Amino acid sequence: MTFMFTLAAQDQQARAGSFTTPHGTIKTPVFAPVGTQATVKAASPRVLKELGVTLVLANTYHLYLRPGDELIRDMGGLHRFMAWDGPILTDSGGFQVFSLTETRKIDDDGVTFVSHIDGSKHRFTPEKSIAIQENLGADIIMCFDECAAPNDRPAVEDALRRTHAWAERCLKAKTRSEQALFGIVQGGIYPDLRAHSAEVLRGYDFPGYAIGGLAVGETKAEMYATLEHTVPLLPEDKPRYLMGVGSPEDLVHSVARGVDIFDCVLPTRLARHGAALTRRGRMNIRNQKYAADPNPLEPGCTCYTCTTFSRAYLRHLVKANEILGHNLLTLHNIHMLETLMREMRRAIVDGTFAEYAADFLATYNAVGDADPHPLPATLMR
Amino acid sequence: MTFMFTLAAQDQQARAGSFTTPHGTIKTPVFAPVGTQATVKAASPRVLKELGVTLVLANTYHLYLRPGDELIRDMGGLHRFMAWDGPILTDSGGFQVFSLTETRKIDDDGVTFVSHIDGSKHRFTPEKSIAIQENLGADIIMCFDECAAPNDRPAVEDALRRTHAWAERCLKAKTRSEQALFGIVQGGIYPDLRAHSAEVLRGYDFPGYAIGGLAVGETKAEMYATLEHTVPLLPEDKPRYLMGVGSPEDLVHSVARGVDIFDCVLPTRLARHGAALTRRGRMNIRNQKYAADPNPLEPGCTCYTCTTFSRAYLRHLVKANEILGHNLLTLHNIHMLETLMREMRRAIVDGTFAEYAADFLATYNAVGDADPHPLPATLMR
Repeated sequence: MTFMFTLAAQDQQARAGSFTTPHGTIKTPVFAPVGTQATVKAASPRVLKELGVTLVLANTYHLYLRPGDELIRDMGGLHRFMAWDGPILTDSGGFQVFSLTETRKIDDDGVTFVSHIDGSKHRFTPEKSIAIQENLGADIIMCFDECAAPNDRPAVEDALRRTHAWAERCLKAKTRSEQALFGIVQGGIYPDLRAHSAEVLRGYDFPGYAIGGLAVGETKAEMYATLEHTVPLLPEDKPRYLMGVGSPEDLVHSVARGVDIFDCVLPTRLARHGAALTRRGRMNIRNQKYAADPNPLEPGCTCYTCTTFSRAYLRHLVKANEILGHNLLTLHNIHMLETLMREMRRAIVDGTFAEYAADFLATYNAVGDADPHPLPATLMR
Repeated sequence: MTFMFTLAAQDQQARAGSFTTPHGTIKTPVFAPVGTQATVKAASPRVLKELGVTLVLANTYHLYLRPGDELIRDMGGLHRFMAWDGPILTDSGGFQVFSLTETRKIDDDGVTFVSHIDGSKHRFTPEKSIAIQENLGADIIMCFDECAAPNDRPAVEDALRRTHAWAERCLKAKTRSEQALFGIVQGGIYPDLRAHSAEVLRGYDFPGYAIGGLAVGETKAEMYATLEHTVPLLPEDKPRYLMGVGSPEDLVHSVARGVDIFDCVLPTRLARHGAALTRRGRMNIRNQKYAADPNPLEPGCTCYTCTTFSRAYLRHLVKANEILGHNLLTLHNIHMLETLMREMRRAIVDGTFAEYAADFLATYNAVGDADPHPLPATLMR
């Protein structure tokens, strides 16, 4: 079977697995950096390989507009176009289109919207989203869904109805067997709606299930509670993907609650703003206190940035708007998250995840306020 | 001897040599990419190593202003600060200060100028320039000179008088034996002034000689004629450095006339504007005709960019303002020039430089107008 998900180990809710795709096997839990425009910002494919990245995400909305999904298809598909021969996941374009709140119009058939690049008018439907994603040719593609504000119940109900109808249309529209189409469970912060959504989507037997509509405005407590309630409603033998989540604390809390796959722009976006992800929280390298600091960004880190350059030099690069600063912070930030994922997997296999997670969070939160969010009770042995 | 220059071969005027510095031996002819702010823009030190770069230039003016030469000294010097363990050359800061035509004031003792960053007032003298360059700690440092408009004879004469007086002051101010201080021959396009300058500076027995005041507004014919006249007036047993020159055609023409060392922002600046240096002239990757072109930037090129990515993808990156496009074009452009230098050296050693140069220029100029500039008569066997 092309898309096989096997569990190597489970430690309470936390899972270590493998997901086989046409472009390689992804060991889970996994974090996917985001390559919005068919490039993970400021990181070359060979750097991503060096960092142990096994999955990258690309954005259907952006690539449809520029350079165009048909061009990418004609150039041999997204893997060849961006020279990434590992697994790729594309989103449906829905999230980005719905984010154009000023200019988009939703109906039961689809969404009409205006390009942020040139103001031209376009329309996405479930069928169109699948057609674009088939042109792009990622290994994992996503159902076109509607993501409403998570705590606006009437809006969530309305979106849920469409999301379920659109999931069925996506399945019907899909023609390529070498792509896995994941369903997306919606329902905001409402347990009954999440349960209903999980039940409906399980009926379609997707090869993987995403939990959508989180990390979009609800509190962290609401997000973690929703995960605790929803994840157990998903099939155990399929990967679970939490979309758009990637802060170190959220990764730990979500793996603890049984999530397998993540993506987020955080490591690349922070780098663009001169910030680093470290085991002791975030670090703004522009800070004057690093001006003459000979230490690496994160002592003990084994990445190229930390084994080669000082904080003083990185600060100089960022202050002088030098591209190398952006490259080097990006490299470190992705390395930090990839290392975290590998360590969590190892701890799950070793049966020591609760200790690992507690230790990590204690250190991570030591700088600012203590993390008010407990790990799931099942993990507190 | 720390700074030993030996000639491995000479083919008419063209020379293949080796210059030994405390941070390694530079095989000449050599092209040095420019690391204005202690970073070759969009290229990491490991990429420079991969490309065979053996010498990089850094700018005294920029580093004095930001992050400050004393900070760099305190951080262990420029090599450690920018993590480049190979040879480094710093300019004197003079050229950049004189370029601030609106705000600088020259007198016989030095130059007062205003920072382009914050408008603060500063003063460079020969002694100050050497002190800064000693703090930076490059292997090759340059005399503080005045570069006048090359065809304004009264201005050139005035500048020459100062340049010679300042050369002596630089020599006296210098304290570090592990740095080679190069003299700079000025004189614009005037053979008698160039001859006078070469004679005066030879008297100081510098370990290397630069030809300054070229590629600053004169015609190519004037530049080549000045080189043909001036280079033979320099000591044969010392390296000759043509400052600020780096287009492929100028490199070939200047090596043909006996120059050993070059630096230029061209490969990195062109990359920033989406342009590539190829053996068939310059190429603007933004051009619509590359939109669906599956070929590499330069077919046959062995660099990472050309062996991995298509013109279509590079165009997409540049059009979308993605940093990776800047990184990849920079990598290719430096590779192109470094390869050209290695090939010229090989041809000199093999005694086939005239044929190599003629072939290269014929192909390079095939796209646009034919190169109207002949190689030196001595090479036309």
